[in-house]
Amino acid sequence: MAAPSPGYAITVRVEAPSSSTATSGLAAAVSAAGGALTALDVVESHADRLVVDVTCDAVDADHAESITKALADVSEVSVRKVSDRTFLIHLGGKLEVNPKVPLKHRDDLSRAYTPGVARVCLAIAENPEDARRLTVKRNTVAVVTDGSAVLGLGNIGPAAALPVMEGKAALFKQFAGVDAWPVCLDTQDTDEIVSIVKALAPVYGGINLEDIAAPRCFEIEARLRELLDIPVFHDDQHGTAIVVLAALTNALRVVGKTLDGIKVVVSGVGAAGHAIIRLLHAQGVTDIVACDRRGAVHPNGEGRDEFRRWIAENTNPRGVTGSLTSVLAGADVFIGVSGPNLLTGDAIATMAPDAIVFALANPDPEVDPIAAREHAAVVATGRSDFPNQINNVLAFPGFFRGMLDAGAHEISDAVMLAGAGAIADSVRPEQLNASYIVPSVFDPEVAPAVAAAVKHAAQATA
Amino acid sequence: MAAPSPGYAITVRVEAPSSSTATSGLAAAVSAAGGALTALDVVESHADRLVVDVTCDAVDADHAESITKALADVSEVSVRKVSDRTFLIHLGGKLEVNPKVPLKHRDDLSRAYTPGVARVCLAIAENPEDARRLTVKRNTVAVVTDGSAVLGLGNIGPAAALPVMEGKAALFKQFAGVDAWPVCLDTQDTDEIVSIVKALAPVYGGINLEDIAAPRCFEIEARLRELLDIPVFHDDQHGTAIVVLAALTNALRVVGKTLDGIKVVVSGVGAAGHAIIRLLHAQGVTDIVACDRRGAVHPNGEGRDEFRRWIAENTNPRGVTGSLTSVLAGADVFIGVSGPNLLTGDAIATMAPDAIVFALANPDPEVDPIAAREHAAVVATGRSDFPNQINNVLAFPGFFRGMLDAGAHEISDAVMLAGAGAIADSVRPEQLNASYIVPSVFDPEVAPAVAAAVKHAAQATA
Repeated sequence: MAAPSPGYAITVRVEAPSSSTATSGLAAAVSAAGGALTALDVVESHADRLVVDVTCDAVDADHAESITKALADVSEVSVRKVSDRTFLIHLGGKLEVNPKVPLKHRDDLSRAYTPGVARVCLAIAENPEDARRLTVKRNTVAVVTDGSAVLGLGNIGPAAALPVMEGKAALFKQFAGVDAWPVCLDTQDTDEIVSIVKALAPVYGGINLEDIAAPRCFEIEARLRELLDIPVFHDDQHGTAIVVLAALTNALRVVGKTLDGIKVVVSGVGAAGHAIIRLLHAQGVTDIVACDRRGAVHPNGEGRDEFRRWIAENTNPRGVTGSLTSVLAGADVFIGVSGPNLLTGDAIATMAPDAIVFALANPDPEVDPIAAREHAAVVATGRSDFPNQINNVLAFPGFFRGMLDAGAHEISDAVMLAGAGAIADSVRPEQLNASYIVPSVFDPEVAPAVAAAVKHAAQATA
Repeated sequence: MAAPSPGYAITVRVEAPSSSTATSGLAAAVSAAGGALTALDVVESHADRLVVDVTCDAVDADHAESITKALADVSEVSVRKVSDRTFLIHLGGKLEVNPKVPLKHRDDLSRAYTPGVARVCLAIAENPEDARRLTVKRNTVAVVTDGSAVLGLGNIGPAAALPVMEGKAALFKQFAGVDAWPVCLDTQDTDEIVSIVKALAPVYGGINLEDIAAPRCFEIEARLRELLDIPVFHDDQHGTAIVVLAALTNALRVVGKTLDGIKVVVSGVGAAGHAIIRLLHAQGVTDIVACDRRGAVHPNGEGRDEFRRWIAENTNPRGVTGSLTSVLAGADVFIGVSGPNLLTGDAIATMAPDAIVFALANPDPEVDPIAAREHAAVVATGRSDFPNQINNVLAFPGFFRGMLDAGAHEISDAVMLAGAGAIADSVRPEQLNASYIVPSVFDPEVAPAVAAAVKHAAQATA
């Protein structure tokens, strides 16, 4: 069974007798039910009874129910109500829009609004470049989705995707001071999405595409890059590729190998897999084998679209065929951005010595990381409950901070490599080891380092 | 010449000798040049010289230049730099997006973002109504423009319109706690605007259309109302109509007349004029004559579109023809939402006794308010430098607050009348007189009163 997680934390308000053993009985009940107790708060105390808020992490919704039932079964205890802390934090949404200027009296209004604002409007009408100086455009990013590939949940639509986009926007501000706003589109038509985002662009300094299904996401990104003079970033592609390259850079340092000599197997040719392969290819990795559900993608295979054809034409130089398990033999690096439980520890054992395994499918990796670690030198996942979490939040806030500060729009290989290098170098040599190849997502030095490197690279190539 | 305004405030940094008369010389120079001095700040003091920031209001940009020149001409004074305080306040934009939830450590991230957020997404996917409870949709309004009719500046486009939309969004938050976000669209195609706003709707609890040219604005509003389950409000129409009705209600109280017995002349049949006429008509005003540039609109006139035809068919019961000046004779109320200097004081003198004049064209009213006041009992304008400013900020923040709180979407006559009544009643009987028919825009009681009345009316008619 998975471990209890704060993502499934509940607070159960119970009434219990005011005996000296009442709270320890509650704690014991939670523990016996497999919950991880995080707080016992007495909220009311009476001569004969206590009201206690019992807060604990559960594994999932069913487990939360069984913990609640275990508490209700304690002698003389009754459950008053159950609060789900994740839902509580989402009530009313996670973002707010605030004025940065005072609006307390008439003079404020005359400057920030009419009549003064008219002069600012005219200045921009005369010189459109002034929009970056005199409006929010200097610091804004649209977090755009059509709700077609949200987390691992699939095509749940724009309204249900909004909590993720709000969270993403909140992270943009928290980690890099970027004002990001969710744009959840009630359409999944490629042409319509392109024309809508183009029409929205005057307000934004950057576009972050998010959780849009492949291959539609590739075409949307490519067409918007042609149309707009602001950066268009698809986090599932570029963010993931940057963090994977950073992690791989450090993993190779740990095992003493280099990018140009390694054999890499990538499982998954969706948005993330495609971008990872392109970035590794641009970095000089020559032996990459991509696998989809049917096994190795090879030059003679069918190319369903231009993006798939690019992979077929630019990978698999040895022309291998067969299943993921069979092509993994002898590989130095496995990168999984596909689905759960595709490999066993035995398959990992067939890899080259000092193998590197990135099993990034969420919540269930391509291979059990504990089994993988028995045979591989370095193992990373997308999960927070194992070492080496590959998390895009290491990349996107600082990346956009750098692009906005540079006033740049082209997301070249150079800026992506600069971002990856800055993340990798945030792990100091004395910190680097097989269980610490990427910095903590809460390391406050990462986003500024990424921003500085990206800004510098963007200006150097402009 | 118009009076100096804080909308044209400048700060001139000068170097002057450190004599005892230096600063009084600077003040005298500003005054002689017609500027209104607001501050003299000594920012550096040396044995032989001072550096002084001279802040003053000017009439316009040319006037600001002549004040600067007057300062430079003072003996031994040199100007270092001139800062425009309106531009200073706009640097970097006027809005920011902030997280409402803590994101300081792993548990926060697990609840606000992955993995916890997935459960919130699934809850909304299963029950779409939950979006109003668990996302920003509960409290958000999109301020949508195509930049085609911005203030009195005309078709300046979406980028140049952004400072106005940011200001509007700031007012939404300041006065009613609504999280509003600017949507400046790089298209002026009616079909495209309709489909874009429809696609954006999942994130918003309301749509505020702004500064979109007539008659396009009527069709966009009407079609969006059909398509969406959130309120669609066009401030230039509905906001203006609500505030005009509020002001008219109180002006009639001052002169002792009632809505059902008055003759009204409306100059201007664009967005504002159309909405004012419809709302007055719904309130039982039977004798309305609408005028465009060619004079009175009458049933036999040409109807360029369905909105114009509605006016032709529902106004002018006496079938009058002729110029604005000629039809004004004998009218009780003049409402101008058109252009500058269309009428003289003499024309106002031909109106009925105890005439009411709302000359709302900005910045220059249809008639000089001082000349109008010689013949009319009550005069109001859109300007802040005369009594009785008719300002939409009295209506839109509280109006949307009430609609959002009610979870309502239909902008019926009933909710508009409720809003107008609340604004009118915010002026207490003992305050009411010919120079105080609307409350101050900074009266903190207005928005909550409007919100409560609108919420009540929306729930009563739902």
